[in-house]
Amino acid sequence: MRPRPGVRPVPQRARPRPEVAALPLYRVAQHAPVRLNRNESPADWPADLKRVVLERVAARAWHRYPEADAAEVRAALARLEGLDPEMILATNGSNEAILGVLLAFAAGGAVVVPVPGYSMVRALAASAGARLVEVPLRPDFALDPGAVLAAADGAASGETAPVVFLASPNNPTGNAFSPEAVEAVVRAAPGLVVVDEAYAAFAGRTHQPLLDRYPHVALLRTASKAFALAGARIGWIVADPEVIGAVRRALPPYTLNVFSLEAARAAAERPDLVAERVRTVVAERERLAGALREVPGVTVFPSDANFLLVRTPLPAPEVAARLLAHGVLVRDVSAWPALTGCLRVSVGQPEEDDRFVAALRRVLEEGA
Amino acid sequence: MRPRPGVRPVPQRARPRPEVAALPLYRVAQHAPVRLNRNESPADWPADLKRVVLERVAARAWHRYPEADAAEVRAALARLEGLDPEMILATNGSNEAILGVLLAFAAGGAVVVPVPGYSMVRALAASAGARLVEVPLRPDFALDPGAVLAAADGAASGETAPVVFLASPNNPTGNAFSPEAVEAVVRAAPGLVVVDEAYAAFAGRTHQPLLDRYPHVALLRTASKAFALAGARIGWIVADPEVIGAVRRALPPYTLNVFSLEAARAAAERPDLVAERVRTVVAERERLAGALREVPGVTVFPSDANFLLVRTPLPAPEVAARLLAHGVLVRDVSAWPALTGCLRVSVGQPEEDDRFVAALRRVLEEGA
Repeated sequence: MRPRPGVRPVPQRARPRPEVAALPLYRVAQHAPVRLNRNESPADWPADLKRVVLERVAARAWHRYPEADAAEVRAALARLEGLDPEMILATNGSNEAILGVLLAFAAGGAVVVPVPGYSMVRALAASAGARLVEVPLRPDFALDPGAVLAAADGAASGETAPVVFLASPNNPTGNAFSPEAVEAVVRAAPGLVVVDEAYAAFAGRTHQPLLDRYPHVALLRTASKAFALAGARIGWIVADPEVIGAVRRALPPYTLNVFSLEAARAAAERPDLVAERVRTVVAERERLAGALREVPGVTVFPSDANFLLVRTPLPAPEVAARLLAHGVLVRDVSAWPALTGCLRVSVGQPEEDDRFVAALRRVLEEGA
Repeated sequence: MRPRPGVRPVPQRARPRPEVAALPLYRVAQHAPVRLNRNESPADWPADLKRVVLERVAARAWHRYPEADAAEVRAALARLEGLDPEMILATNGSNEAILGVLLAFAAGGAVVVPVPGYSMVRALAASAGARLVEVPLRPDFALDPGAVLAAADGAASGETAPVVFLASPNNPTGNAFSPEAVEAVVRAAPGLVVVDEAYAAFAGRTHQPLLDRYPHVALLRTASKAFALAGARIGWIVADPEVIGAVRRALPPYTLNVFSLEAARAAAERPDLVAERVRTVVAERERLAGALREVPGVTVFPSDANFLLVRTPLPAPEVAARLLAHGVLVRDVSAWPALTGCLRVSVGQPEEDDRFVAALRRVLEEGA
């Protein structure tokens, strides 16, 4: 064993860039009987479907590099989307898609993001060397196209932003933006508009029609939510072939492995299963929201996603810690100024959700 | 189906950065009876070992995100390395490790690379916003520490380079640099020195001892060569915990999936199998080199890797094309000025290598 950290001096000559050094290390609590903190699908894939994928993986050559263009997967995803395969790029989760878009388009410039928003964009923008320009959502969490466009046009800095990054439904607020507001941004944006649609299946609509009219739009997808494949790390970008080509150039080749390629193909081939899961989650979301609204002092915000934003009268870090003592992991999102007192709770299995509601009721009854 | 590329105008507002737009799309020929163009291991994993991995994958929760810190894999790799787990970061192939190091340390600055060298570094440096400073190797492909250090110290630009990137054994030349030359660079480099050891197992030595004395060294490893797992996309970085922490911050979390985590663990647990494969490849490399030296007009360069650099009297693109007509894929590396007439050929199965030698003999006998 070599010396543990701290025993020898910090490397004087190997200083990371200050923007990167300042980032927090990504850590997330993972161990509890009820885990409602990561917006995962509440149920694993059925064993027989896993077998189908694993048989295909077993038959592959593990000692060979995978196909650099992931042609089969792109074709399967293209059929799912009703689009040409040249408009698809499969990535190692949608985080890699975000990094790729920022490296290709935003590095050295600004990326405009409404806030509260997806926290990973902050870190990846710092890593990619892009400057983050945050624009508040309206008090009801609606998108403010005028404010976004003013920021993108460089009202403050005098420099137009090469990328506007939206998520709809938005995380952690849970609401989908109105199609009109999103199109207003797209119509007048000075650069690429990225719409992260990680949760779109739960809203029942997509911004895909924008692609017919605007070649400067990129949609991000993930298999981690509706497809129940967070463990397989699969995302994809849907965009004009020119945009796809630029992101391919910015990322390493071969970022999907023999397993994620087969899992992506299997998932794309079974939209029926995904639709059924989405219906189940949406119905359970409404049941959970109803149960939470009966808890005194709790505000439940409208959700188009697979999670709920919930405000309680007590400080959110304390509520989260006390819920964990009851065996329930939720996400404290109260560090966003607009989200004081707020928790983000994934829609789980009914019995998990019941346990969460009971625990929350008890925590609030016990008071501060 | 939506319009194919070219039907609608190029997006005017979504222009990628010129450095990225100028990159070639990564393409590699993949279909031929004998594939000796990607330095892969010549044989797949045995079926029973695949089964062990796939049973573990089947038992995992695919709908959950993997462990963000990949703790089990880091522990297994740390045992393999004889180091502390905090000195290890597992990545989605070593290409992601290169991108992560460049994003954390080099973006906005220079990265010094000896040439001929690993072509992927060029592309990833452009993507990461780092300026590439190329320093020629000596005529015998040895490292020239004085030239590398002069470039790193900014002799030409007046600006010191935050990263020096070496690969030893070097690709595509195949030779390992002398430990003294590498240490001379490390001792005086103004920033981080990355040593890509993708092929070190075939040289029978590693620069790991440098880590005892120099905290500004990062070694890159891959499971794609000696471990025969190119299809699983597994790499890792070995470095001071401070360096590891910086690269973790620069990359997205969760870049290994449930399969690559299990494959990495299984590989790390069986160094005996890897050592046996390495012995086989090294013996076959020497046999192949001997056979090639008997082909009139052919020069075979000394190799410490799992491939050979070969020069023939005919133009390399033509030789490669004619070999492919005989069913043998090799890599034309003659675009490097120092490598006129050169091909890079992976060590394959004995019958594949025999077929390559016979085809080469025939191509050269037929002449230009």
